[in-house]
Amino acid sequence: MGFCFHVTHTDGRARAGVLRTLHGEILTPVFMPVGTQATVKAVPPRDLEELGAQIILANTYHLYLRPGDELIARHGGLHRFMSWPRPILTDSGGFQVFSLSEMRKIDDDGVTFKSHLDGSMHRFTPEKSIRIQENLGADVIMCFDECPPPTDREYNAIALARTHAWAVRCREAHTRTDQALFGIAQGGVFRDLREQSAQFLASLDFPGYAIGGLAVGEDKADMFRVISWMDDALPAHKPRYLMGVGEPADLIRAVQRGVDMADCVLPTRLARHGAAFTRNGRINMRNRAYAEDERPIEPECDCYTCRHFSRAYIRHLLQAGEILGLYLMSIHNIAFLLNLMREVRESIIRGCFATFAETWLRRYERAENPMHL
Amino acid sequence: MGFCFHVTHTDGRARAGVLRTLHGEILTPVFMPVGTQATVKAVPPRDLEELGAQIILANTYHLYLRPGDELIARHGGLHRFMSWPRPILTDSGGFQVFSLSEMRKIDDDGVTFKSHLDGSMHRFTPEKSIRIQENLGADVIMCFDECPPPTDREYNAIALARTHAWAVRCREAHTRTDQALFGIAQGGVFRDLREQSAQFLASLDFPGYAIGGLAVGEDKADMFRVISWMDDALPAHKPRYLMGVGEPADLIRAVQRGVDMADCVLPTRLARHGAAFTRNGRINMRNRAYAEDERPIEPECDCYTCRHFSRAYIRHLLQAGEILGLYLMSIHNIAFLLNLMREVRESIIRGCFATFAETWLRRYERAENPMHL
Repeated sequence: MGFCFHVTHTDGRARAGVLRTLHGEILTPVFMPVGTQATVKAVPPRDLEELGAQIILANTYHLYLRPGDELIARHGGLHRFMSWPRPILTDSGGFQVFSLSEMRKIDDDGVTFKSHLDGSMHRFTPEKSIRIQENLGADVIMCFDECPPPTDREYNAIALARTHAWAVRCREAHTRTDQALFGIAQGGVFRDLREQSAQFLASLDFPGYAIGGLAVGEDKADMFRVISWMDDALPAHKPRYLMGVGEPADLIRAVQRGVDMADCVLPTRLARHGAAFTRNGRINMRNRAYAEDERPIEPECDCYTCRHFSRAYIRHLLQAGEILGLYLMSIHNIAFLLNLMREVRESIIRGCFATFAETWLRRYERAENPMHL
Repeated sequence: MGFCFHVTHTDGRARAGVLRTLHGEILTPVFMPVGTQATVKAVPPRDLEELGAQIILANTYHLYLRPGDELIARHGGLHRFMSWPRPILTDSGGFQVFSLSEMRKIDDDGVTFKSHLDGSMHRFTPEKSIRIQENLGADVIMCFDECPPPTDREYNAIALARTHAWAVRCREAHTRTDQALFGIAQGGVFRDLREQSAQFLASLDFPGYAIGGLAVGEDKADMFRVISWMDDALPAHKPRYLMGVGEPADLIRAVQRGVDMADCVLPTRLARHGAAFTRNGRINMRNRAYAEDERPIEPECDCYTCRHFSRAYIRHLLQAGEILGLYLMSIHNIAFLLNLMREVRESIIRGCFATFAETWLRRYERAENPMHL
């Protein structure tokens, strides 16, 4: 199979590495923009390539419901369907089934749920999730897991047993040798459960491991504590993927704790809400203060948006409800995270990540009026 | 001043020419995409450049109301504000005042109207329209005119006198020598009024003339009759601009009657409604028939959309409400009209426009299930 991963440099607990797939090489740590419905919202794939996006994520739950994984398979898989030549990762559908579907019944065999689109009934099992992900044809696919609230110990213990049994079944159901199947460690905010999960999944020897069940509303301190435990518990030579994290400061702190990959809808979602990342914190581009501001969103940014357009113009587009505003904001916010992760990687390679992180975080978090959406 | 126009080839009544402005040369006949609020909806300016758009239109009424022409002037004018380096044409605001504003009072001096955005009261006079257009800084600007319903003879006679008096005032108010001010001929569907209008405006020796008051709901036969009269009546060595026409068959028939320039929101508006231009007529991309269609929208088209994406993918995006669907559709529809006008121009230069037009129209209008939006 075409998948392999090497840690090439370490700096503290932070790692720089290379992840190889049949659709190309990924330099880690890496941020993965999310293309839920086979499109990173508002951004054409050639623009993503220009920005240097190395891998994007797509959602199994959404694509299964619409347009259907079998249709995508008939069209040659997701890469061809959406005209994205580089690596793709699909999630298992588990998280969406638990968070989006209107009604669900979980048993040891799987989950029955109601589509959020039309109310139709569906059932996901570990085998079904893998079959869908094989139809979609991503380079990295995920085990089907249960995502309980992170602070409910009893539920986490029960769910963990199920997630582990499902991981075994996913591994057995998986047939495509051109895809890497990652395990997902759960266990909420409980160290023993997390360690048990890491140990169990490691025994199955997956080519990579996700840290699941975080960034769902728990305390940030809890989140980073769990990530640190996982750094100790997971095999060091396999990639670690932190699911659902995209706030710049969180990305840096995750990398400080041994994370190699992360994904989040944040850059495109914030764009649609009018918020832009800058090195001095988030700014709300709808703010009247920018009506006459001739500067780009971020003077230090080299993206298309910042090379060509003023804050005044972007604010005008947002105020006027123009789609181009969402496009320009999305481009910038994605560029911001991709550039940040490139700088993070460079500083790890040069052995100065600690200083980089400290300086960067101080500036980013010093912002006097940070806007939190 | 940097503006000049030369007819380089004729074929029947059709003309190929070159229009020079300070922001570049325009090869005619030309279709001008519309960027109402300083953006061609959903299309980044670099994509428009790639498509070969030579000149775009922006709307004085909209930009005056939001973000304000003075703000745009402070930011170096419209070209810089929207990052569009090529020529721009602004309309006078007249048509929008008559069609969009909620309430209006016309007198011989100007029009008082209520903003469609916030109900605030405003007044446009010929002098005000020119001052706004000078602030915006387009290469081609238009006289402020009154746009009566085309079949009301009495109203057209009264409005024409006003439009002519206003043309004189616009000419006097216009100070920027880097802009070409076009006159607008009115007169509804009445030959004597149209000829009177052409003659009066020609006496003012404008560098170009628009045919106004058409494509507002009158019979197509009436529209083409008026265009033919104007071809006879307007000075042959000046460019003729047909306002508000963008249906492909209409563009061809307009060029057959001596038109050099045309603009319309149709390609981007249709895109947002899910309709795509093809050489076999319009198709509704939301149609279930395209759910599994692996072909591009138009196999003969070389635009980004048609080079990379299937009808099935585009339909999926439209069904899922994804912005990328609007982008891809807009790109294609604009490319379609720009490519059409390039072919029209080539055939005029080669002296085979009549055959080209007949063949093209037969195929386009033969479509068995044309969709008319």
